[in-house]
Amino acid sequence: MCRWIAYRGETIALSHYVTEPSHSLVSQSIQALESTASTNGDGFGLGWYGDHPEPGLYKEVRPAWSDENLRYLCRHLRSHLFFAHVRAATGTPITRPNCHPFACSGWLFMHNGFVGGWPRLRRRIEALIPDELYPARIGTTDSEALFLAILGAGGMKDPISGAEKVLAQVSDMVSEVGPDCLRFTAALTNGKDLYAFRYAANDFANTLYYRQTETEILIVSEPIDRDHTRWKTVPENHVLIAPEGEAAFVQPFLDRKLEAAE
Amino acid sequence: MCRWIAYRGETIALSHYVTEPSHSLVSQSIQALESTASTNGDGFGLGWYGDHPEPGLYKEVRPAWSDENLRYLCRHLRSHLFFAHVRAATGTPITRPNCHPFACSGWLFMHNGFVGGWPRLRRRIEALIPDELYPARIGTTDSEALFLAILGAGGMKDPISGAEKVLAQVSDMVSEVGPDCLRFTAALTNGKDLYAFRYAANDFANTLYYRQTETEILIVSEPIDRDHTRWKTVPENHVLIAPEGEAAFVQPFLDRKLEAAE
Amino acid sequence: MCRWIAYRGETIALSHYVTEPSHSLVSQSIQALESTASTNGDGFGLGWYGDHPEPGLYKEVRPAWSDENLRYLCRHLRSHLFFAHVRAATGTPITRPNCHPFACSGWLFMHNGFVGGWPRLRRRIEALIPDELYPARIGTTDSEALFLAILGAGGMKDPISGAEKVLAQVSDMVSEVGPDCLRFTAALTNGKDLYAFRYAANDFANTLYYRQTETEILIVSEPIDRDHTRWKTVPENHVLIAPEGEAAFVQPFLDRKLEAAE
Amino acid sequence: MCRWIAYRGETIALSHYVTEPSHSLVSQSIQALESTASTNGDGFGLGWYGDHPEPGLYKEVRPAWSDENLRYLCRHLRSHLFFAHVRAATGTPITRPNCHPFACSGWLFMHNGFVGGWPRLRRRIEALIPDELYPARIGTTDSEALFLAILGAGGMKDPISGAEKVLAQVSDMVSEVGPDCLRFTAALTNGKDLYAFRYAANDFANTLYYRQTETEILIVSEPIDRDHTRWKTVPENHVLIAPEGEAAFVQPFLDRKLEAAE
Repeated sequence: MCRWIAYRGETIALSHYVTEPSHSLVSQSIQALESTASTNGDGFGLGWYGDHPEPGLYKEVRPAWSDENLRYLCRHLRSHLFFAHVRAATGTPITRPNCHPFACSGWLFMHNGFVGGWPRLRRRIEALIPDELYPARIGTTDSEALFLAILGAGGMKDPISGAEKVLAQVSDMVSEVGPDCLRFTAALTNGKDLYAFRYAANDFANTLYYRQTETEILIVSEPIDRDHTRWKTVPENHVLIAPEGEAAFVQPFLDRKLEAAE
Repeated sequence: MCRWIAYRGETIALSHYVTEPSHSLVSQSIQALESTASTNGDGFGLGWYGDHPEPGLYKEVRPAWSDENLRYLCRHLRSHLFFAHVRAATGTPITRPNCHPFACSGWLFMHNGFVGGWPRLRRRIEALIPDELYPARIGTTDSEALFLAILGAGGMKDPISGAEKVLAQVSDMVSEVGPDCLRFTAALTNGKDLYAFRYAANDFANTLYYRQTETEILIVSEPIDRDHTRWKTVPENHVLIAPEGEAAFVQPFLDRKLEAAE
Repeated sequence: MCRWIAYRGETIALSHYVTEPSHSLVSQSIQALESTASTNGDGFGLGWYGDHPEPGLYKEVRPAWSDENLRYLCRHLRSHLFFAHVRAATGTPITRPNCHPFACSGWLFMHNGFVGGWPRLRRRIEALIPDELYPARIGTTDSEALFLAILGAGGMKDPISGAEKVLAQVSDMVSEVGPDCLRFTAALTNGKDLYAFRYAANDFANTLYYRQTETEILIVSEPIDRDHTRWKTVPENHVLIAPEGEAAFVQPFLDRKLEAAE
Repeated sequence: MCRWIAYRGETIALSHYVTEPSHSLVSQSIQALESTASTNGDGFGLGWYGDHPEPGLYKEVRPAWSDENLRYLCRHLRSHLFFAHVRAATGTPITRPNCHPFACSGWLFMHNGFVGGWPRLRRRIEALIPDELYPARIGTTDSEALFLAILGAGGMKDPISGAEKVLAQVSDMVSEVGPDCLRFTAALTNGKDLYAFRYAANDFANTLYYRQTETEILIVSEPIDRDHTRWKTVPENHVLIAPEGEAAFVQPFLDRKLEAAE
């Protein structure tokens, strides 16, 4: 399991949320509180939008807590929309390309979760990635494969629909080959709109919180401070949608019990 | 392009050939003489057979020339059959899983060359790997894909035939999608028999040399000393076969002009 | 705080104690039980004696728990006397030269502890290292400085006396500049005799255990299995001495209350 | 020997000079033209001034040519004054703290050169660093020691005088212990004024070039493009001084033949 935060709002130094809060993402790298893996020391990554047309990426295989580069960069990199992620690997190697977030065609994605039975399902899930996006598969994680499959399933036009299509297919595969489970707590953005998913098949979903003001929204795996009254929970099998310039809202995501009932 | 050496003979410290000779593999990492890339600083790897049933692997993304671990390990690791490789990447990321040699089911493989047009051919070449070997694809290189495809094409029983099948298919793909070229100068072993291939399609083949005595055989990308009289060249489109306990010999490999003439 | 193990006995694969036990050193790297820092993810190191006249060293800045090289090496490296260490840094950078064990003139040393007020005391403690050993200071830790100071204080001839001299001086410095504290739970060897110190000034000493049979001795920061009846504690301010070919014994080390009483 | 560039001018993305030019610093990392070491693959570093009161630092032990983080960061980091350096180590370990530039109290420093006989002189040169700056010695290079010694010799008030004092002392040490040589081609800044030194004792000095327009100055080890008419050479044993808001000029530095003649 991993920990991540996603921010959109005024342009700020990344340090504001990545390194400075009492229970910042960097603190969570060595001592997470709401995760089965309290240590998230298998690499980390930053993704951010700035003046350059392509988002920036910084990935490193060392733990976030001891990376002096990270502290300097978070003070100096400023962005109005950024992702940050600390990894607890679930089987794939600790390499930079396997660190989150992943980038493709101006989109960023990061994930906390796993696909049960991945070694057996990998080929079938990779087959969901269309040919034109396959060169963007730089690493070997289940997370990156889900990202590219979602983009390939129309996700660049309709991210919710793309994600529902892919997660429905993958949930079926996991149940069929397993019975195993799938957890998908993930963030996706095109640099303007933000989407945060909290979903699981055959299991509990990993935690997901957010808080918003008139000018900013912050979405997190677990709160970065002790003031829990400020944080709202995204319910299981729901997606948080924060369109550019509008208030965020929550709606059901792939609620298959609902589907079955209909 | 990369540089590599393969050794079989008396049990010796790896330092004997990896670090000590005047133009050792480690020297070649910073200054190769017979390569288009004189710097082979994109990681390196060792693979060796010892007492443990599985061969050992040591891989590192840093250049070989400055790795103090490598010097200590080469002094202390002893083997009767080992591979060593320094990498000059041709497009895939610098990660440990992308460093050679690669291991699968007791076999080791390493490669100097490339598959032209790899980003477009990758999916088709990965499809040559049978399902049961696909979990052994830990990295993302063309080299590892060729290795697993060869094993999957019956290579564990007949390595020459397996390699010819796969290289014929891949040569066709390269010509078809390109016109592009393919270079394949590679070593393969099951821990007993040694195979070294020198092949190219639509191009010159990368250099390959060997020298043998009654007790040992050493196969190299380029000689590790200046005494060139001791080294024999493996001709282009040939394979060197060194069965356990027998003298090595050279035979044609996938000579398609011959095939066409027949 | 760090975790370490020291072994002397029959020649065995390092995996026997480093990676295989239920609560092996590698397990302790992600979840130590008797340490203020449960995560020891700031690099690790191996030191071992083999056929080569100099002991081998393998050091890495990544956490031990995810280092695939470590698993291969521990299976293949065999030794009759080895040290292994996982680090939780206390202020000095995460670099390979700062990983334990340290080597000098055939001696190995590793440490769990710290010198309180190190930034202010560093220069004075480095001054304890004689000129001829100063080139062996490759890193910047307090631990390496203590090691070289001990060797310089006659430690190559009489390790106990050398260590007592240096620790007495450093304890005084720490008390004087502080009041601060010092913890020194360390292992030292010349490749034959083993010494393990458990000492603290102005503080509790870090834990230290050992178990011995007729053929082997194993000394550890904390037991590597749950069978606690097999492990003996080295008392605070004591040193365990295991001369080559003889049974180990424990004696007081720098007991300044005793000294004061005399 | 190393390669470096220093820039002051309009606020620009670092990529403008670090990665984009035909013979950029990153190109020089794999193929420098005016250096005894054509490969500068022993780590690299960036130092830059931005909105945060402290300059930023990014250091990495891998070669610059393959670091994908570096490409992203250079596109997104913008600065009016930055240093960039690729390292060819001359004996001290490849660690992040040993990568240039070095930072202390708002100053940045980077160096191409070496102190002959460093292992024997190290202690005497470190003794030139005053106590209050010694905690800023994070690595173990001769370069960092020179930097802190210069700051300690009044360099924060008068950098030229501080550098002349230290280099005179160190030149004497080198001649005395040797006879050996010293090369010092270095850049120093307080975030406003820029100083670039080209000096050697008992040897040729490493190359140093600059070009300036009304709005910017660029100082380099070797030109970053083929338009050599635009570049001026700093003569041996001279210093280039570029005060904030004024045109740069060159003056003699520690010309001991002149001194002797006086």
